[in-house]
Amino acid sequence: MQRSLAEVAKAIGAQLQGEGLGIVSRVASVHSASWEDLVFVEDPKFLDAAVASSAGAIITAKFAEGVGSRKPLLIVEHPKLGFARAASFLADEPEKGSVSATASIDPMARIGAGVAIDGRAMIGKNASIGEATRIGAGAAVGQGVVIGKGCQICSNVTIYPGTTVGDRVIIHAGAVLGSDGFGYVRDRKTGHYEKFPQVGTLVIEDDVEIGANTTIDRGALDQTRIGRGTKIDNLVHIGHNCQIGEDVIIAAQTGLSGSITIENGVVLGGQVGIGEHARVCEGVMVGGQGGILPNKILRGKGVAFWGTPAQPLRQYLKQLAALARLSKK
Amino acid sequence: MQRSLAEVAKAIGAQLQGEGLGIVSRVASVHSASWEDLVFVEDPKFLDAAVASSAGAIITAKFAEGVGSRKPLLIVEHPKLGFARAASFLADEPEKGSVSATASIDPMARIGAGVAIDGRAMIGKNASIGEATRIGAGAAVGQGVVIGKGCQICSNVTIYPGTTVGDRVIIHAGAVLGSDGFGYVRDRKTGHYEKFPQVGTLVIEDDVEIGANTTIDRGALDQTRIGRGTKIDNLVHIGHNCQIGEDVIIAAQTGLSGSITIENGVVLGGQVGIGEHARVCEGVMVGGQGGILPNKILRGKGVAFWGTPAQPLRQYLKQLAALARLSKK
Amino acid sequence: MQRSLAEVAKAIGAQLQGEGLGIVSRVASVHSASWEDLVFVEDPKFLDAAVASSAGAIITAKFAEGVGSRKPLLIVEHPKLGFARAASFLADEPEKGSVSATASIDPMARIGAGVAIDGRAMIGKNASIGEATRIGAGAAVGQGVVIGKGCQICSNVTIYPGTTVGDRVIIHAGAVLGSDGFGYVRDRKTGHYEKFPQVGTLVIEDDVEIGANTTIDRGALDQTRIGRGTKIDNLVHIGHNCQIGEDVIIAAQTGLSGSITIENGVVLGGQVGIGEHARVCEGVMVGGQGGILPNKILRGKGVAFWGTPAQPLRQYLKQLAALARLSKK
Repeated sequence: MQRSLAEVAKAIGAQLQGEGLGIVSRVASVHSASWEDLVFVEDPKFLDAAVASSAGAIITAKFAEGVGSRKPLLIVEHPKLGFARAASFLADEPEKGSVSATASIDPMARIGAGVAIDGRAMIGKNASIGEATRIGAGAAVGQGVVIGKGCQICSNVTIYPGTTVGDRVIIHAGAVLGSDGFGYVRDRKTGHYEKFPQVGTLVIEDDVEIGANTTIDRGALDQTRIGRGTKIDNLVHIGHNCQIGEDVIIAAQTGLSGSITIENGVVLGGQVGIGEHARVCEGVMVGGQGGILPNKILRGKGVAFWGTPAQPLRQYLKQLAALARLSKK
Repeated sequence: MQRSLAEVAKAIGAQLQGEGLGIVSRVASVHSASWEDLVFVEDPKFLDAAVASSAGAIITAKFAEGVGSRKPLLIVEHPKLGFARAASFLADEPEKGSVSATASIDPMARIGAGVAIDGRAMIGKNASIGEATRIGAGAAVGQGVVIGKGCQICSNVTIYPGTTVGDRVIIHAGAVLGSDGFGYVRDRKTGHYEKFPQVGTLVIEDDVEIGANTTIDRGALDQTRIGRGTKIDNLVHIGHNCQIGEDVIIAAQTGLSGSITIENGVVLGGQVGIGEHARVCEGVMVGGQGGILPNKILRGKGVAFWGTPAQPLRQYLKQLAALARLSKK
Repeated sequence: MQRSLAEVAKAIGAQLQGEGLGIVSRVASVHSASWEDLVFVEDPKFLDAAVASSAGAIITAKFAEGVGSRKPLLIVEHPKLGFARAASFLADEPEKGSVSATASIDPMARIGAGVAIDGRAMIGKNASIGEATRIGAGAAVGQGVVIGKGCQICSNVTIYPGTTVGDRVIIHAGAVLGSDGFGYVRDRKTGHYEKFPQVGTLVIEDDVEIGANTTIDRGALDQTRIGRGTKIDNLVHIGHNCQIGEDVIIAAQTGLSGSITIENGVVLGGQVGIGEHARVCEGVMVGGQGGILPNKILRGKGVAFWGTPAQPLRQYLKQLAALARLSKK
């Protein structure tokens, strides 16, 4: 929506420099920006290009202050963060919530004020949908599931019974929450596998985002938990009983088997694999395709690990270098 | 449902020791158990904790016999298996089958007795659903698909035409069965790829379980087959013409390209990748993230392989150790 | 459908040798072929088996000319390609398009002639579906999405707003197109991640095929693009802002993070992982489970790379061999 630069500056805590009467309505990249777009520049070397672009104004940092810019500048400490917040401030309010006539809603479900439920979504018995939450087409919300306020559950998501979702959670299309974990007991006599009970729960805390076609299993007997503010990319697998902390980043196609602990602030690259009962301690980073063995503990705030089995990055790079030298002998 | 300990003991073939008049209704972990829960203990060192817990009774093995327990014990040979069976024995019977008014069922489909079809599921022409099978919300069962008795097809599953599913099969949400394989022929003149026919079939045998968002392609010209009792985790990919034996375990995010043979009793860890026409012989185990080259054959009942390309575990660990030593020189 | 061999020969540009009055109606593998099936033979050593089979005729190459075959032969330059085209020529025409009464179609959507929309599909406001396109059960086509002619969108696919799909595109069940990319900005003060705007677009060009449960994110501010004729397998992840060229092959479970360029004619094996801003140049091949670091450029038409970090194949094999030798010392 259209906002004056002064309004944007106020919303994101920026100092406005230059023409303050301008109007912007969206965010854009520098090369595609038009006069009503906001852009951002973090690196001084890109400032000229932004000034030369068609953008309406530039969110940038102190280094640009006093530059005789032909464009209005919004000076903040952290331009990318300011840009993200400006985008959110400028975003159109979603159309007002309404419940489609083709949605199937159990009469025993509780639907909060301002909830929007799209066509063919299905809300089970005793499920509860918080205020202003939006449920996409074809999403299946199981019996007794509790979803908080201001969530966005996209199309064709499936949420099994036993799942609780906090506030402001975004779940992308095709994700599956609360499915049975992968647990069997082998009968030694017959060689057949019998299903171990998968009757626990799944808790997704506030402000979590979960990518498309990601799967998160419920606990076997107890709980699987995804902590507040954690962001999970597409096609990730999280097994039963995992305990994922707060502000954790998990990139695409990473897989966690069962009963793993990921502490707060961990960053897992793409296609990482983690064996059962492993623990990744606070602030550890694991590089893409890294593999962590069962029961292993990785420690060290800000320490990067890589390889399979995962080792401190420096040590692993030494090994790669030694191997390269060896093969040239 | 509530059952007496005597009934449970009979159902799982346990010897009941101690108070036989107790009642239990569920299974639980030791730390969360209440008086009506059954727990299990396999390792003597955890027996005291279980006895001290609030659990109603403990499924355990001979080592606990004669222990002056304040709790009733159910003594079996394999406590975890007994626990799994007790869980199944105590499980509530699913609510009686009914067909939702919002399901779309082709008039030419055959629906067995006691079948439950949830809202918005879609059953195609000439499809056949066996007795007491349950079809979840939004599941799409294609034309001519045959599904056996007592199956559970969860929400938003898609089953393409040409697929046959046995009895007591569980298919978790979002799984896709019978999709086209990945086969093309490149026209050398234009450099374009043209689709090779993908017109074969997919057969899922009895007692198979398939995880959420897993994909299994039909054969190109012939058949893809998943053998009896095989268990497949979430986000697994199985390509066209694969032949998977019986009682095979495939952990999450493992991928099989085309025309692979996996013999009975194989265990594949998570994120394993297998090239086309490879064969994994009976009883082989492959560690997580292992990679098997096209046309390769892995042999040896109970032998573990690891790494890419996959090697016998001992040999691979030697290589890892040699590399670690080398980099320290 | 039934066709004379003469018709098939004409359709695929083959020279018909032997009995030209035969009729065929399908394609098959040699071992399962019946009298009305076409088979193909590329390797002379398999010719005898094909002649001895029950197949109605054999598509093969010049080497078979003059062989006193008891079966009609269709001689072409590239038998597998001829077979693929014959399969397409013999394929039954799909049943005529119709729009199911249980589909939800916004009154502002534009539906072309001959479009088929299956039960419970959902077509959003201002979406446009081209002539003769088929939309499967439960597919969700978002607001303003444009889909071309002759496409096949399978069951339970989700297409987000901002996506444009060309002509003759096939999208398999459960795929998600146009979901938000994985982009956040961390607020250094709170340690929390805030969503970077994901408001760009996704363009799928003509003749692309996309596998089951694959996910492709829209651009963050600009565009994600999948070039003409590119074929993508199941469970692949393509992140925001990726630029995929024409006639690219991407095998199952491969993952591309953001802003990656894949040039024309590249072949990516299964479970390959690519870091952000990397570029894979024209005609490069990357072996299964290969890993490409962020910002890396791989060059060389027809050059194969393997390993993590990916290296030219020959070099990588040398390293593997050196390591094997070392561990035996």
